[in-house]
Amino acid sequence: MTIDVAVFGAGRIGTIHAANLARQPGVRLKYVVDVNSAAAATLAARHGARVADRDGAMGDAAIGATVICSSTDTHADLILQSAAQGKHVFCEKPVDLTLARARACADAVAQAGVVCMIGFQRRFDPTFSALKARVDAGEIGVPEMLVVTSRDPGAPPVDYLRHSGGIFKDMLIHDFDIFRWMLDDEADTLHATGSCLTDPAIAAVGDIDSAAVTIRTKRGRLCQINTTRRAAYGYDQRFELLGSEGMLQAGNVRPTEVTAYTKQAVSNDVPEAFFLERYRAAYALEIAHFLDAVTTAKPVRTTVADGMKALELAEAATLSWKEGRIVTFGERAV
Amino acid sequence: MTIDVAVFGAGRIGTIHAANLARQPGVRLKYVVDVNSAAAATLAARHGARVADRDGAMGDAAIGATVICSSTDTHADLILQSAAQGKHVFCEKPVDLTLARARACADAVAQAGVVCMIGFQRRFDPTFSALKARVDAGEIGVPEMLVVTSRDPGAPPVDYLRHSGGIFKDMLIHDFDIFRWMLDDEADTLHATGSCLTDPAIAAVGDIDSAAVTIRTKRGRLCQINTTRRAAYGYDQRFELLGSEGMLQAGNVRPTEVTAYTKQAVSNDVPEAFFLERYRAAYALEIAHFLDAVTTAKPVRTTVADGMKALELAEAATLSWKEGRIVTFGERAV
Amino acid sequence: MTIDVAVFGAGRIGTIHAANLARQPGVRLKYVVDVNSAAAATLAARHGARVADRDGAMGDAAIGATVICSSTDTHADLILQSAAQGKHVFCEKPVDLTLARARACADAVAQAGVVCMIGFQRRFDPTFSALKARVDAGEIGVPEMLVVTSRDPGAPPVDYLRHSGGIFKDMLIHDFDIFRWMLDDEADTLHATGSCLTDPAIAAVGDIDSAAVTIRTKRGRLCQINTTRRAAYGYDQRFELLGSEGMLQAGNVRPTEVTAYTKQAVSNDVPEAFFLERYRAAYALEIAHFLDAVTTAKPVRTTVADGMKALELAEAATLSWKEGRIVTFGERAV
Amino acid sequence: MTIDVAVFGAGRIGTIHAANLARQPGVRLKYVVDVNSAAAATLAARHGARVADRDGAMGDAAIGATVICSSTDTHADLILQSAAQGKHVFCEKPVDLTLARARACADAVAQAGVVCMIGFQRRFDPTFSALKARVDAGEIGVPEMLVVTSRDPGAPPVDYLRHSGGIFKDMLIHDFDIFRWMLDDEADTLHATGSCLTDPAIAAVGDIDSAAVTIRTKRGRLCQINTTRRAAYGYDQRFELLGSEGMLQAGNVRPTEVTAYTKQAVSNDVPEAFFLERYRAAYALEIAHFLDAVTTAKPVRTTVADGMKALELAEAATLSWKEGRIVTFGERAV
Repeated sequence: MTIDVAVFGAGRIGTIHAANLARQPGVRLKYVVDVNSAAAATLAARHGARVADRDGAMGDAAIGATVICSSTDTHADLILQSAAQGKHVFCEKPVDLTLARARACADAVAQAGVVCMIGFQRRFDPTFSALKARVDAGEIGVPEMLVVTSRDPGAPPVDYLRHSGGIFKDMLIHDFDIFRWMLDDEADTLHATGSCLTDPAIAAVGDIDSAAVTIRTKRGRLCQINTTRRAAYGYDQRFELLGSEGMLQAGNVRPTEVTAYTKQAVSNDVPEAFFLERYRAAYALEIAHFLDAVTTAKPVRTTVADGMKALELAEAATLSWKEGRIVTFGERAV
Repeated sequence: MTIDVAVFGAGRIGTIHAANLARQPGVRLKYVVDVNSAAAATLAARHGARVADRDGAMGDAAIGATVICSSTDTHADLILQSAAQGKHVFCEKPVDLTLARARACADAVAQAGVVCMIGFQRRFDPTFSALKARVDAGEIGVPEMLVVTSRDPGAPPVDYLRHSGGIFKDMLIHDFDIFRWMLDDEADTLHATGSCLTDPAIAAVGDIDSAAVTIRTKRGRLCQINTTRRAAYGYDQRFELLGSEGMLQAGNVRPTEVTAYTKQAVSNDVPEAFFLERYRAAYALEIAHFLDAVTTAKPVRTTVADGMKALELAEAATLSWKEGRIVTFGERAV
Repeated sequence: MTIDVAVFGAGRIGTIHAANLARQPGVRLKYVVDVNSAAAATLAARHGARVADRDGAMGDAAIGATVICSSTDTHADLILQSAAQGKHVFCEKPVDLTLARARACADAVAQAGVVCMIGFQRRFDPTFSALKARVDAGEIGVPEMLVVTSRDPGAPPVDYLRHSGGIFKDMLIHDFDIFRWMLDDEADTLHATGSCLTDPAIAAVGDIDSAAVTIRTKRGRLCQINTTRRAAYGYDQRFELLGSEGMLQAGNVRPTEVTAYTKQAVSNDVPEAFFLERYRAAYALEIAHFLDAVTTAKPVRTTVADGMKALELAEAATLSWKEGRIVTFGERAV
Repeated sequence: MTIDVAVFGAGRIGTIHAANLARQPGVRLKYVVDVNSAAAATLAARHGARVADRDGAMGDAAIGATVICSSTDTHADLILQSAAQGKHVFCEKPVDLTLARARACADAVAQAGVVCMIGFQRRFDPTFSALKARVDAGEIGVPEMLVVTSRDPGAPPVDYLRHSGGIFKDMLIHDFDIFRWMLDDEADTLHATGSCLTDPAIAAVGDIDSAAVTIRTKRGRLCQINTTRRAAYGYDQRFELLGSEGMLQAGNVRPTEVTAYTKQAVSNDVPEAFFLERYRAAYALEIAHFLDAVTTAKPVRTTVADGMKALELAEAATLSWKEGRIVTFGERAV
């Protein structure tokens, strides 16, 4: 049995997902939809698909699943439309920049009974998921403290930042998801602070480029996240989880295992350049997971609820930073 | 333009090459040939190909290239037949267990004017080829000394070993090719010694499981290779090249970047399990290189001549070990 | 010229300092003072010194310098007495548990014109001081973010903790000093939170065993510190400093450079067991630095003012944690 | 009880041993002997010792032990004289450049019943001795293969090389001792080859600067040693031991644990600069071991017999290289 899929968005991430879909047995990439019709045409041609507009793709009853990689402001509408048409949905993070609309999406897919998976691809990274499996197997006892280092090699254009929802929603949302996944607990209090240290233009649009977040969970576990938009040495994605009986670290991945010895230093490659390279395997595995969930009705690892929880944390962090105060959950602070 | 390909051999390595061929644009995997017809049928089905017998595949004028992954004793015949039919050839190492037949293959493909590439996949490993590029760029000055560690996780069945040509032809042939590639020179003298330390059954078929080879090149450069059929910790594939201005090491690749801290140790994953995992990227890249050479007429990186040179070294090593003497090249010692 | 020294305190750290003093040229360890007379006698005997009581040692005009390693509640009195007698002072951290008394000490040594150095030995650790020198040389541009991991292998007895001043004054005071040293800036706001996760007896004396601190500096630089009293894998002392042009990490030191490969893992030694081992070189270097300052009148690297600043941060952290609020400096919040 | 010691030789290594002796309880460094009287005076002054000439020191019945760090050609005479006077002896490697004289020394110390220890300090290196202890504890099963990398940062002056006995006696003698210690077996066959690649002046005095040695033991175990006089990146001292159940590696030691991340690379310190730094701990531990043997009559870890065995291997290697042949032991090939 073959499932027909429509991909919305022919940009960087749509291109990745389309290629991974094309490699899956039992999948036919039928449509590529993008307002940039040249991009849509190029991507469609590469995989023997057709260009369609939004309603054309959504209206085709043969389409069993949609893969949403278009801009953030279109996510919620496309999810709602997919649910209305009874199509399964894979949607890039975030679900939406507001909790209210994210909640509406959660309700809609629940009612429609369709699979809806959010693209927190890090949960499928071989290093991260192996680490999680070892934690679950009890290797380090009870988790106590998580330290996340999440740094981009460079900031996106200021025009993008202006509509991004800010560093916490745009960038740290992944780390908030890692926090919940790794500590297996929910936030009780959150403190965030930050600065604009790399480019005043970022401050000019009301955002920051450097941030430090601390979360204390309901069970008293601790999490610290540090981030920057501009790490001169590249894309830095590490975390470490301290447990009662040991610690597990997830390190960066490097392109090659060459070590050079010179008069000055012993040196290795810098980490993989950016998310497309770093999470190449993760992207393939998450799409396979989605298709497996669609065909076997197994639950997905990253649900709309996960997307909402991460968004809640991002909103709390934004509030904490802007108002210079500690945010407490439970009393529905956000 | 699309090239039709026939794969000979549906075993482990044939399966790898077939999958990589199927992923290449401009390639159609038309036939799978194997004396084990069930294996041929399974592999053919997976990629929409047909099962054929040897003459059927070779006789089809539409087949532009053959990919030979069948048992070593069939290599030379299939190369000769491909050349006779004007088909380009990719052939797994070794070309043959005898130099005479390897030479016949070299002559045949030269006369036929077809591309013939030998499967020394290590030259396409991202770590190894990055290292080579850095050497060629002069990063460590003039190469002086190469140390190769090449260890298998376990010996193949004794029945296989009986017909393998011995540890030097079967296993170290790859390392002899690395030697020539890295030191960019030819052997002047060679000394090999070894022992049977892991399983007396290996000695019973006249072979050894542990070996140490030293080569001194025409220009006085030195190379040491150490090997075992049974490294308890897995597949170990490293080398290091000392130059006049520094050193470059090629390290093992590990499945994940998880580091565990316990009361006892700080530990990482063991290396990738065996050659199929370790050289996954290399296999994909070498097939792409072959197809590129076929379509663009660029020279291949691993020629029949390279295969013959590696075989010469393997024969010399066998002689050195068996007769307990140093073999000198140039005077055509072998 | 030889300087006569009196050591106060013959415990773990007094023993270390006495041995390092004994190794310095130009130094005579004349007295060991300790309420535990057996301990004093043992240590004195080892280095050819005499046991004295406090007034005896302080009253000897020949004593040029005191080295204070006795319990925290005696530090301020001994500093004041040393200053009154015109003796140079080396004193273990903290100066005192209250800022008022620490300030009195600062005033007294300034008036007396004696050298007074506080035992922040980490500033003399070869790894940490090499890193600092590279930062000062501009290797990573402008410092932006510091992440400190500071974990003990196990908590001291609860009786000790009861009088320790709490985790921030007793344990993190070193890290607060690292913060000031590395970011070369002062705190603007501080947030601390924590939990008692390893032993309820620690909560019973009003303390915590796990803490997370975030500091934002006057210049907007960020610092996160994470700590635990009980890291199952040992003593963990690392930090990393992100700058505008790169990052420098200070890693743990391990007893040997043995790497083991087994079927299960590739593993190395756990870090040095605890502070006496980890900072062995640092202790020797700080005593040499002190004696150099005494004889050459060069300024010391770790002054009473540094001790006070670290204590201010520890008090602010205690307040932040206890009252669940962000502490702001400048308005003299503490 | 205190033992009086005379040190012969006030050069680099004599300076090291004198300082380590001075730090030992129960030892009095009484005399320093050197033909360079200024050097002797400086070293003696530093440790409160006196300058003596050879016969003066040897003739003093109060001297219980001699520490011989003078030039190689004086070793045997000084050992013989020490033995004749009933003094215990610590002597730097090599015992002598000829086996006959080394044998005479062995006989003399045996007859005199004095302790005689040879300065193979590597056996006291914390990393190397920890590795050996783990091998002895069975951690990797039965040893099968040893790979030794032993590279100097630069060649000594050619005038020194002229009288050094050649690379195998002067430099690899340490590695031959490591071989015997680690594989716990004796050589059956040995092959050595080499080249002069770094400086023609070395060839002009009949020596080489790059060498590769292979030894097969009586039990069929294998050892490969590679060396150079000039590693551009510094002093490189590693080995790895493969056993039936795993592998242990001894890595280089680096001055600090700083890791730097830049746009170009992730880099660490190069190894400790040369033997004085790399084996600082080993030198202290071997002198303590010697004094312990002298006072407790426990056997020493590195005997004259060990010195002779290493010399035998060095002679065999020289022969193998010069004559281009494999040397077989047992038939007393050397």
